[in-house]
Amino acid sequence: MVKKELLYEGKAKKIYTTEKEDKLVVEYKDDATAFNGKKKGQIQNKGVLNAEISTIFFELLAEKGVPTHLIEQLNEREVLVKRLEIIPVEVVMRNIAAGSLARRLGLEEGTVLKRPVLEFYYKDDDLGDPMINEYHIYARELATEEDVNVIKELSFKINDILVEFLKAKEIDLVDFKLEFGKGLDGKIYLGDEISPDTCRFWDSETKKKLDKDRFRRDLGEVEDAYQEILRRLKN
Amino acid sequence: MVKKELLYEGKAKKIYTTEKEDKLVVEYKDDATAFNGKKKGQIQNKGVLNAEISTIFFELLAEKGVPTHLIEQLNEREVLVKRLEIIPVEVVMRNIAAGSLARRLGLEEGTVLKRPVLEFYYKDDDLGDPMINEYHIYARELATEEDVNVIKELSFKINDILVEFLKAKEIDLVDFKLEFGKGLDGKIYLGDEISPDTCRFWDSETKKKLDKDRFRRDLGEVEDAYQEILRRLKN
Repeated sequence: MVKKELLYEGKAKKIYTTEKEDKLVVEYKDDATAFNGKKKGQIQNKGVLNAEISTIFFELLAEKGVPTHLIEQLNEREVLVKRLEIIPVEVVMRNIAAGSLARRLGLEEGTVLKRPVLEFYYKDDDLGDPMINEYHIYARELATEEDVNVIKELSFKINDILVEFLKAKEIDLVDFKLEFGKGLDGKIYLGDEISPDTCRFWDSETKKKLDKDRFRRDLGEVEDAYQEILRRLKN
Repeated sequence: MVKKELLYEGKAKKIYTTEKEDKLVVEYKDDATAFNGKKKGQIQNKGVLNAEISTIFFELLAEKGVPTHLIEQLNEREVLVKRLEIIPVEVVMRNIAAGSLARRLGLEEGTVLKRPVLEFYYKDDDLGDPMINEYHIYARELATEEDVNVIKELSFKINDILVEFLKAKEIDLVDFKLEFGKGLDGKIYLGDEISPDTCRFWDSETKKKLDKDRFRRDLGEVEDAYQEILRRLKN
């Protein structure tokens, strides 16, 4: 599949059109950003690592019946995907308190939540991606009630699949971000990526962080952590 | 009903026990606070005005089938209520964008929302009463799913009743806060108050603010605004 023109360049990925209207090429970059773009850097080989890690997760989810945008990995940095119209709402699923949830609820980082928590965020850089709820989504007409119900159901299902899969790899899935979009067929698919950029992964035993928090919080060994995740996923 | 001992003193009210275990006396104060207690002042006659205004709203809601804590107004500042165990979650209902919602969604103040918005806030002064969602409520065990469903249903019903009632008084109900609690019978009742302290009321024609925003934003004529609301409610 030949890339035609650059459609969009984001913080961590470039998106290209192809000769097929309904297919896009996603190229994973080594660039890393945090805090709504205020912190910038590079993580060596991140693009290559995340392309492979995300493909493993998306193939697992597809096997379990989750509709995803993934068609196939093309090469070490590039993935072919279904073109989606992205819904401007990010879903964050949480199993263990960390980051903004720990601050919001006054919980110590590491507190296991009694039930998984789903949060919606409005994808809007100028507003700082604020947390919103379903009623905000309807009032702003960001998605219909029917779409939100499908997204919620898929998000909890994805959480169950990933928690179980990662548990066997001795990884705690602390929290992660999902994005959904509509295909040309009008159906909802999981889009974007699932990687150490978009998840918090902790070693189940030592609780060592194996994700982008190592970059956000200047903990060092960032590439090693991404490598370690890939190594465990392939075992 | 004779007041026994001071059970609790809040920013705008004092709560007293009575000789009956299941009944409390609420005394409305003239004290006004804003911004989580950072701004403090007094609004002359506020206690008297809010006691009467809130009683009018609670009697209206009771007539329409909403279970409330109100038993009767005892005198100009005091109201007799059912004792509730307050659920530590505030509900904010919104019909028109203002305040934090306008900021959160990047909407101009005064934008009429396509659908009413319900928001939950965690009643915790130390955390600054953060916005939360249903899943946070369940994870923190602040209320059960059954209770949350009752609270949501009552909140939308209350909004419908108040919007219609106030429309006839040429008042726009922009947004308002509700608190719920459980009676000794285990049922959910509407508690707290409904007044210009807890609602945004705008004149339908001129959009003049007739509520605590006059105090928050130093707009002057604060007591006049509360008086005007009471005058219209009694007409």
